[in-house]
This record gives sequence, C-alpha cells and structure tokens, in this order.
Amino acid sequence: MREKNACTFEPIGIIRTPYQDSAPYQPVDSDSGEFRIILDDRYRDGLVQLEKFRYIYVLYHINRLDREVKMTVSPPWAEGRQIGLFASRSPVRPNPIGLSIVRIKKIEETSIYTSGLDVFDETPLLDIKPYIRDLDTKLDANYGWLDDADDMEHLAQHIQGVPHEH
Amino acid sequence: MREKNACTFEPIGIIRTPYQDSAPYQPVDSDSGEFRIILDDRYRDGLVQLEKFRYIYVLYHINRLDREVKMTVSPPWAEGRQIGLFASRSPVRPNPIGLSIVRIKKIEETSIYTSGLDVFDETPLLDIKPYIRDLDTKLDANYGWLDDADDMEHLAQHIQGVPHEH
Repeated sequence: MREKNACTFEPIGIIRTPYQDSAPYQPVDSDSGEFRIILDDRYRDGLVQLEKFRYIYVLYHINRLDREVKMTVSPPWAEGRQIGLFASRSPVRPNPIGLSIVRIKKIEETSIYTSGLDVFDETPLLDIKPYIRDLDTKLDANYGWLDDADDMEHLAQHIQGVPHEH
Repeated sequence: MREKNACTFEPIGIIRTPYQDSAPYQPVDSDSGEFRIILDDRYRDGLVQLEKFRYIYVLYHINRLDREVKMTVSPPWAEGRQIGLFASRSPVRPNPIGLSIVRIKKIEETSIYTSGLDVFDETPLLDIKPYIRDLDTKLDANYGWLDDADDMEHLAQHIQGVPHEH
C-alpha cells in the first residue's frame, strides 16, 4: 500500500542576491548585481570539477512566499487564461522547491558566482546539479501553452532574456 | 544572521516504474516498460494545460538509497577520477531530491504516462514543472568534466540514449 511519508531537507548553503523585497519573474535573466551561491564549508569537497560546467541547476527552498497554493494560476503570459499549477513555474506550489539554471562565472572557495538568479536574498540552498549538454538540452522541446500567446515573438525575447523595447 | 531551517515536504503523488530492485544509471533513456506519474486526486486541477508541453521536469524524493553521502564520487564515466558530488548526478546527496526530464506520452485523469524515468517503483513525487523551450534548452551548455572522457563519442551516445554496440 501507498505510504505518504513527509521528507525533511536541511539547507546545504545559502543564495545571496540583490533582491531584498522583490524578485523578478523567472524568464528574465538579469546579470545586473551579484549573485552568489555559498555552500556550507562541510560540503566544500563536493565542488571539485564543478567549474568545468558552464551551467548548473540550482534547487532551493522558496521560503519567503506564504500565499495560498491554488491549483490554477494565471501567469503574466497566459493573457487571462487559467493554467494548471504544474503547467506553470509559479513559485507558490505544494512543495515550494525552486529550480533555476544559472551560468557559472567563477568559483572561489565555497562561493559560486553566477548569472542572474530570480530568488530573494538569503534563500536556502537545497542542491546543485550539473546541467549537461544533450542530457538536459532537449532540442525538440516546445513552448506548451505559451505558444498560444498573441505575441509569441515578444514572449520569446523575454524567455531568452533578450533586452528589448516595450 | 543566517538561519538553518529544515524544510519538510509531503509527496504530491507517486511514480510507478518497472524498477523494483534496480534502476538504470541516469543518462540511459529507456522507453521499455510503463512509466507513470500518478498525482494525488486533490491536485487534479493543477494538470490543466500540462499536456501541451512535450517535456516536463519531475522532482522526486530518492527514498530507497541509504548509502553514506560522500563529497567526492567516481561516476561510471569519470574513468576512476574523483569528482565532486555537486558536479555529479549521483543520487546519494545531502538532500536526495531527484530531477529528471521526461517526455509526456499521454495524460489520463491524474496519470501522466511518460518516457523512461530512472527511479524505483513507488518513488514519492515532489513536483512537476514544465520544461520550456529556450528557457531550459541552454544551447551553449557543455559536458563539463565528461569532456575529458577518453571515448567522448561513445559517452555522447549514452547521454543521448542512442542505442549502440559495446
């Protein structure tokens, strides 16, 4: 029979960002400001060879949002339509585990300096995994419901983090 | 001051796979057998529009491994070298949160039928997120330390799940 066991995780470090009170919506990849993942010293040896990767996955605990979890959401690009929570990247989820892909700029001691990371300052770090070419770059991936946006070209610029005029 | 708060997550469903006693090593994408993510009924509405995506991220609790967590590991492709845990996709991690990308085959009620998922049967599901073209397909991603493998061409076939002779 199925067991429903809660699982408990303990942060392995902390994420420092310029965002004290508000964080940007996910698809924007901002490189302004300093983004730094600080691993607890006891895990220091786990970083060996990590600098060889251009990108990493960062998993973290979204711990600053206490809004009610709703099963349908209306993200900025849904143009008013209701989208299922699991078809969205909304941070308000039953298990608030955040997932971001960032570029490694440099690693010094237990600090990983990265490209923009859309989380609040002092977000608890749960895991780091290498983002591996081919394994993680699904070239036939699609845009899902985002494809239905009236201005898909504009949206694509946001997704890719391309600066553009509004 | 820094706070180290443990966080507790409760499974939102379960993953059914053919793997009762052993699961394949991650990069192999096996389509043999049935792979099915069953979401708890209370989250049913969270699946609206999910079928529009070709790929999804699946996050799960790696709950069947109780090996000691070590900060350096020697994955099959490291050819004996020691690699930092966070530069690897080893399932034995301080926070055993698994991350896989799978292709959606079909969704029926609260069951998502997918491509191969290298987890044990009855693995607790933690989250589902859409894998979004451009946002998640980092075209300039690299292979990290895997690039140092003597037979990179062979390895690339494994990573891509291409059948080949040994």
